[in-house]
Amino acid sequence: MERSVDVVVVGAGIAGLVAARDLARTGAEVLVLEARDRVGGRLLNGELPGGGPIEVGGQWVGPGQHEALALIKELGLSTYPTYDTGRRIAEFAGRRSEYTGRIPRLGPVALADIGQTQLRLDRLARGVPTAEPWLAKRAAELDGQTFATWLRRTARTTAGRSFLRVISEAVFSAEPEDLSALWAAWYINAAGGLDMMIETAGGAQQDRVVGGTQRIALALAEELGDSVVLGAPVTDIEWETSGVRVRAGATVVRARRAVIAVPPTLAARLRFTPGLPGDRDQLVQRMPMGRVIKVNVVYDEPFWRAEGLSGQANSDRRPLGTVFDNTPHGGSPAVLVGFLEGRHADVGARLDPADRRARVLDDLAGYFGPRARNPIAYLERDWAEEEFSRGCYGAFTTPGTLTRFGPALRAPIGPMHWAGTETATRWAGYLDGAAESGHRVAREIASALQDKA
Amino acid sequence: MERSVDVVVVGAGIAGLVAARDLARTGAEVLVLEARDRVGGRLLNGELPGGGPIEVGGQWVGPGQHEALALIKELGLSTYPTYDTGRRIAEFAGRRSEYTGRIPRLGPVALADIGQTQLRLDRLARGVPTAEPWLAKRAAELDGQTFATWLRRTARTTAGRSFLRVISEAVFSAEPEDLSALWAAWYINAAGGLDMMIETAGGAQQDRVVGGTQRIALALAEELGDSVVLGAPVTDIEWETSGVRVRAGATVVRARRAVIAVPPTLAARLRFTPGLPGDRDQLVQRMPMGRVIKVNVVYDEPFWRAEGLSGQANSDRRPLGTVFDNTPHGGSPAVLVGFLEGRHADVGARLDPADRRARVLDDLAGYFGPRARNPIAYLERDWAEEEFSRGCYGAFTTPGTLTRFGPALRAPIGPMHWAGTETATRWAGYLDGAAESGHRVAREIASALQDKA
Repeated sequence: MERSVDVVVVGAGIAGLVAARDLARTGAEVLVLEARDRVGGRLLNGELPGGGPIEVGGQWVGPGQHEALALIKELGLSTYPTYDTGRRIAEFAGRRSEYTGRIPRLGPVALADIGQTQLRLDRLARGVPTAEPWLAKRAAELDGQTFATWLRRTARTTAGRSFLRVISEAVFSAEPEDLSALWAAWYINAAGGLDMMIETAGGAQQDRVVGGTQRIALALAEELGDSVVLGAPVTDIEWETSGVRVRAGATVVRARRAVIAVPPTLAARLRFTPGLPGDRDQLVQRMPMGRVIKVNVVYDEPFWRAEGLSGQANSDRRPLGTVFDNTPHGGSPAVLVGFLEGRHADVGARLDPADRRARVLDDLAGYFGPRARNPIAYLERDWAEEEFSRGCYGAFTTPGTLTRFGPALRAPIGPMHWAGTETATRWAGYLDGAAESGHRVAREIASALQDKA
Repeated sequence: MERSVDVVVVGAGIAGLVAARDLARTGAEVLVLEARDRVGGRLLNGELPGGGPIEVGGQWVGPGQHEALALIKELGLSTYPTYDTGRRIAEFAGRRSEYTGRIPRLGPVALADIGQTQLRLDRLARGVPTAEPWLAKRAAELDGQTFATWLRRTARTTAGRSFLRVISEAVFSAEPEDLSALWAAWYINAAGGLDMMIETAGGAQQDRVVGGTQRIALALAEELGDSVVLGAPVTDIEWETSGVRVRAGATVVRARRAVIAVPPTLAARLRFTPGLPGDRDQLVQRMPMGRVIKVNVVYDEPFWRAEGLSGQANSDRRPLGTVFDNTPHGGSPAVLVGFLEGRHADVGARLDPADRRARVLDDLAGYFGPRARNPIAYLERDWAEEEFSRGCYGAFTTPGTLTRFGPALRAPIGPMHWAGTETATRWAGYLDGAAESGHRVAREIASALQDKA
């Protein structure tokens, strides 16, 4: 079967779907090829006991995420606040603290260090241009060191360093050792600062989508109807200036333009004929995905709330370093969501499922008491095992990469345009960045098609 | 067409061919599938004016490379010494020096700094176990920083840092900013120290193969005869404990075992069903290839020799940072070989071919005088543009990778065994390491097949 359309889109995550919809609205004939048998990419609803949806992938939206919020509104979806009442738990440098507000009680020296480090990090981040981070002052020096090196030089206490490591794991799902310091600073600036990224109310974890965040993708796909083809993993793209020929098994699509809306490391796995320039290929060799295993643990009731706890917890000594109350809209059943991130995902993935579950429940019991050991359901998702994600939350650049190959991230090559949250200039790595990138490539292509018309 | 053999080998570089030959000799039926229309991988003969061969890929062998030398001997090939007579040129920190012996004349402070840095680097390297570098003392700390960070802390003069940068470009074809410091130390130890890597006589550039180094691969392939299939790019590998089903276009091969003998970043581009474990996939997402454009510039006569120059030159201010006399066995025509490595390859690749040639000739004229501007032929090869290499000389690990995912480099998965110079424990990244890895997987597989017989 060979079809001809104006624009073929590879990947039915938010980026690809937004691009397809924008282009369809300009009158272009669009076809989206999705490898999986579902849309949504890194957004996915799982099923709770009783049949309700729960996010096993990306889930939150927050203030400042204008593209995501506009999309939610436009699609007639609604949001509700993440449960954020009561005390939070923080365990750092051997000390457990239950606290309200933003600042864990960790002792004055540690707190001063954390405050000072965050101040420096936010200042560093603000100096990194979000569209062209390689133009930052001292870009080469920053890109030439790991985020760990930068933190070692900046944070002075064990608690300070531990705190920043847990933050790194929570926001990048990678260790500070893995990341370019320039990339980390850029990513933080793209989100408007560290507090915006780590906060619940007022930050990136503020709100959730009624029905589960994948509904955004499902609603977009519904609008696109037959223009979305599932179970069609693209493997080959032949291209010339005037168009592409894209193959997914027996399905062959010709188009004037293509949107590649998959993460960089997966874009690297497509076979392009002719091959892509060295700059682009070197870039995608150096943008690995973070690693996270997300677990939703379901209970009859939110027993932690009764004890005045918010369900939010962080620890530098437990593999399950970050936990939130993830009870869905409607309030039942009660859910805690926890994340095994970075090195903790490595260890977790090597366990057999029963052992992994036991360790997760150990950690939840450590935070919230023994009732956490008796869930009514346990849902987990290891995103590094997913063939068509190969990690979450998003990609990062290794040291030296942004300054050497950064411009290849968004620059179209012939008829091919690059989308995906990793190509965004705001909230890169988030749903918001995915939407931004979809709109951007749609504009690029609409303009290119118009020029030729 | 569907065939059944005992062992299928993906990739007809030295690693794959050595593995295939070893296994064939045990009586196993072997089939090698090679994507290109030639064997040799990163070894390739180009053609000089007059028709003689010249290496446009890997070329040298040296003392201590026991696997490579044994192979050369066994195949009835012979070696000849790299031209190494006369003065070398070194340009560092604004100063040009012509010198004999190992040590450029750079002023006492710079020389002391270089000596001290090399001493520390070699000492660091010796502490890294070649088979399990992640077990080194301070492995996490070293792997958590770039080689650039380590050098900044160790070298104290501009000349010292420049010298080590040029070395990094010359041996890794990558910038110090790109590499894990642990990986750099491991790689150096796997070669027996920095001098072994950078020297001509007594080091890794000591000898060349008569007829060009690709002859090793050609001779191996000749022995294997019909067991090597060219133009068969493998895309899919279905596997279970008892065997694999490998697809390359219309060619489908079933086998009890498979050798994957392509660089990690290309192994990442194969589709495995079921998908590979997260540890393995994360590893290959984080082992990019170095980048180099190799140029052979051909002259009527070796005019530099008449002036007492060896043809060997290094510079921290010229893109063509490393040059050797590459005149073939027999002495005619005269050839200089130069390398645009790391960031210099980035810049070089963005030029149009005429500009790139002009800049290369500028640099050669800068080293050797105006006669260098008038070659009779100019051969260049940009290995990052090669679809089935995507860089040279070899892969490296980015920070954090060896300690988190190193063990996945060689560990077989089901019936699949990993070869290629990147999996070697000695001279990884060299022809020698490729041969070592081929022998190793052949032993692994012979032993596994015997256990089942």
